Amino acid sequence: MPVNLPLPEPQDLRAIAGLELAVVSAGIKKVGRRDVTLMRLAPGSTVGAVFTQNRFCAAPVQVCRAHLAELPTHPNPAQGVRALVINTGNANAGTGASGLAHAQATCADVAALLGVSAQQVLPFSTGVIMEPLPVEKIQAVLPEAVRTLGLSSWLDAANAIMTTDTQPKAYSRELMVHGQRVSITGMAKGAGMIRPNMATMLGFLATDACIDAALMPALAHEIAQRSFNRITVDGDTSTNDSFVVMSTHHAQHPVIKSWHEPQAQALLEALCEVACDLAQAIIRDAEGATKFITVSVEQGASDAECLQVAYAIAHSPLVKTAFFASDPNLGRILAAVGYAGIADLAQNRIEMYLDDVHVVTQGGRHPGYMESQGQAVMAQSEIVVRVLLGRGPHAQSVWTCDLSHDYVSINADYRS
Amino acid sequence: MPVNLPLPEPQDLRAIAGLELAVVSAGIKKVGRRDVTLMRLAPGSTVGAVFTQNRFCAAPVQVCRAHLAELPTHPNPAQGVRALVINTGNANAGTGASGLAHAQATCADVAALLGVSAQQVLPFSTGVIMEPLPVEKIQAVLPEAVRTLGLSSWLDAANAIMTTDTQPKAYSRELMVHGQRVSITGMAKGAGMIRPNMATMLGFLATDACIDAALMPALAHEIAQRSFNRITVDGDTSTNDSFVVMSTHHAQHPVIKSWHEPQAQALLEALCEVACDLAQAIIRDAEGATKFITVSVEQGASDAECLQVAYAIAHSPLVKTAFFASDPNLGRILAAVGYAGIADLAQNRIEMYLDDVHVVTQGGRHPGYMESQGQAVMAQSEIVVRVLLGRGPHAQSVWTCDLSHDYVSINADYRS
Repeated sequence: MPVNLPLPEPQDLRAIAGLELAVVSAGIKKVGRRDVTLMRLAPGSTVGAVFTQNRFCAAPVQVCRAHLAELPTHPNPAQGVRALVINTGNANAGTGASGLAHAQATCADVAALLGVSAQQVLPFSTGVIMEPLPVEKIQAVLPEAVRTLGLSSWLDAANAIMTTDTQPKAYSRELMVHGQRVSITGMAKGAGMIRPNMATMLGFLATDACIDAALMPALAHEIAQRSFNRITVDGDTSTNDSFVVMSTHHAQHPVIKSWHEPQAQALLEALCEVACDLAQAIIRDAEGATKFITVSVEQGASDAECLQVAYAIAHSPLVKTAFFASDPNLGRILAAVGYAGIADLAQNRIEMYLDDVHVVTQGGRHPGYMESQGQAVMAQSEIVVRVLLGRGPHAQSVWTCDLSHDYVSINADYRS
Repeated sequence: MPVNLPLPEPQDLRAIAGLELAVVSAGIKKVGRRDVTLMRLAPGSTVGAVFTQNRFCAAPVQVCRAHLAELPTHPNPAQGVRALVINTGNANAGTGASGLAHAQATCADVAALLGVSAQQVLPFSTGVIMEPLPVEKIQAVLPEAVRTLGLSSWLDAANAIMTTDTQPKAYSRELMVHGQRVSITGMAKGAGMIRPNMATMLGFLATDACIDAALMPALAHEIAQRSFNRITVDGDTSTNDSFVVMSTHHAQHPVIKSWHEPQAQALLEALCEVACDLAQAIIRDAEGATKFITVSVEQGASDAECLQVAYAIAHSPLVKTAFFASDPNLGRILAAVGYAGIADLAQNRIEMYLDDVHVVTQGGRHPGYMESQGQAVMAQSEIVVRVLLGRGPHAQSVWTCDLSHDYVSINADYRS
């Protein structure tokens, strides 16, 4: 039985001019593990970010929000975000006032070493929840991190931010904007507790393109909506979800101040493509995943109800175990459609397809459907479930995976 | 590793005067399996029922609703519900117009054999969804069922309605009402696709007490709210959930027309007790269950928000696998509290207990808490999680189980 689906290799990762990386080992959870990543952004870089909607958000998320709120919307080069510090091995969540103090202390140390203000540093943590962050271990290696800035690669960093991920996730794109070559590189980590609500656990997307500071918050939101907010592993929205998009302004094109022009549109699409690659990689490398499933709900009366139905299907343990078993147990999918919460759903208008196989018509089994057809689709490692509600013109998709023995094993053993 | 928790033996099951049972074998899914149960109620019996809120409700649920709507609220003895026919092995759900016709045909046949009208017969089905009901097999054995009415026991029937249940679920109580001995016996089946919303998959509760017909619908609702609507295995609300309460009026006490008198209150409590025994038995015998978990959410601003938080905890695959692993991974519970959807939740007011161990205070780890204490509680097969929201006077509990390898195995193999 395969554990996790193979990912496209993170290859040809492009360095982003104006962004330096360092990866060091603090031994937070395991001795020798490279677990602290430092990013330095050039002066004048612009940043947007979105964070978890979990009310139990982690200390670093609270500090990020506070720092971004304190920075001016239109920073001069001396005032914008200048550094990100990321640790794995401990989420610094559910840690109360001391957790907050630890996240602030980390920022203060980075700021002092780099000669910037603490508000210009954003902290990120991932790992086990509700255990005290060994902040002194992190503080001890920050001077080394600053000394080695620029010596680490995106692949090093993508490896350093993993928790139960089995494979690093990082992708690049390149395109021309106003005659200038522009690079985009992003990385993410995922694996479990994945139902991002504004962002995934940790995702970082950088470009050397020049994007106006005023556009960055909405840009982060828009990219997250099209990528990380369309995936779910287990429906558990993490305490630490953070997604950051960074623009270093090192490409030489005129600053983009609106998305309406075609060159800007192409850049936006390329940014979204990298984010979608990362989001889908999180699903393919989800804890115990053996199948990658696209749930597409169409003919809805609103986007919201399409998503409601898609998530009901994607979260159903019965549907997910049927996918694991390659069993076309269609009734479980219909049952999830039925309990998704659409009060006036007419079951006799429902149509359903597994890939191109028409399995349900007018709410019942399609007369031409043969079990062998469903089994053939379910045996694949990539499957599209299409549900047509017959209620309107709206459509939405989410990406998810199956529920396997390995998911249970991994999560039963995570802390041991 | 134990598969499912032991249940109290269904012993001393009391026959209910005015209610006869027959259990026969139609070979719906397996040859020789006793899979069809017939109940005949004496003239003058009163009945109340609640059904699934799943919009994809099964054909028998649609027929039950239609028949109950057609019967007068205050039936004379010739007009009330007189029979229930229950099959396992096929849910007759997602079966469209032919499924409806099959459920109606079954009722018509029972009605003809018993000399009543089709509206006086209620049909129930449980088993696999979206496969055609082999109605002719059921019709073939109905004459035998009618012939053998009165020869089967509640234990026979509790066995005959099982699907992936490993143990029959049936309990009795006895009490005095206005000087007369009154009996209550109920049975249920559960196992998977369990998040009842108005009722469990199939639950039947009968008493020879005399309860006015006008009280019965609200009685069914009230009992379900206190019992079957407080359990969840996997969050999947079934297409076939049905709960019926029956009063045969064979005890000799004056008819109960209000719940306000003490004798009526005692009867109501006894009925709820049997229903709670059945609901809890469903959790103990849930697919792959190794732990019985009570999630109690207190100090809420409303009952609804307490239930919202309780279900977020009870449905989290991460929380459920941590219970399976006997791992006091408290952060997963806090994360579920945080994403339950209470917009203005103050995390620093949250308190949490595992049984009597105070594990979280003011949203962070309790300073006196030691991991060994949490581990000791988690090693038990019965655990109470108490979460205090610090927002108001309301409290609600739900009962659930862990998520084990066996849940995945059972649901990956169910149809094979």
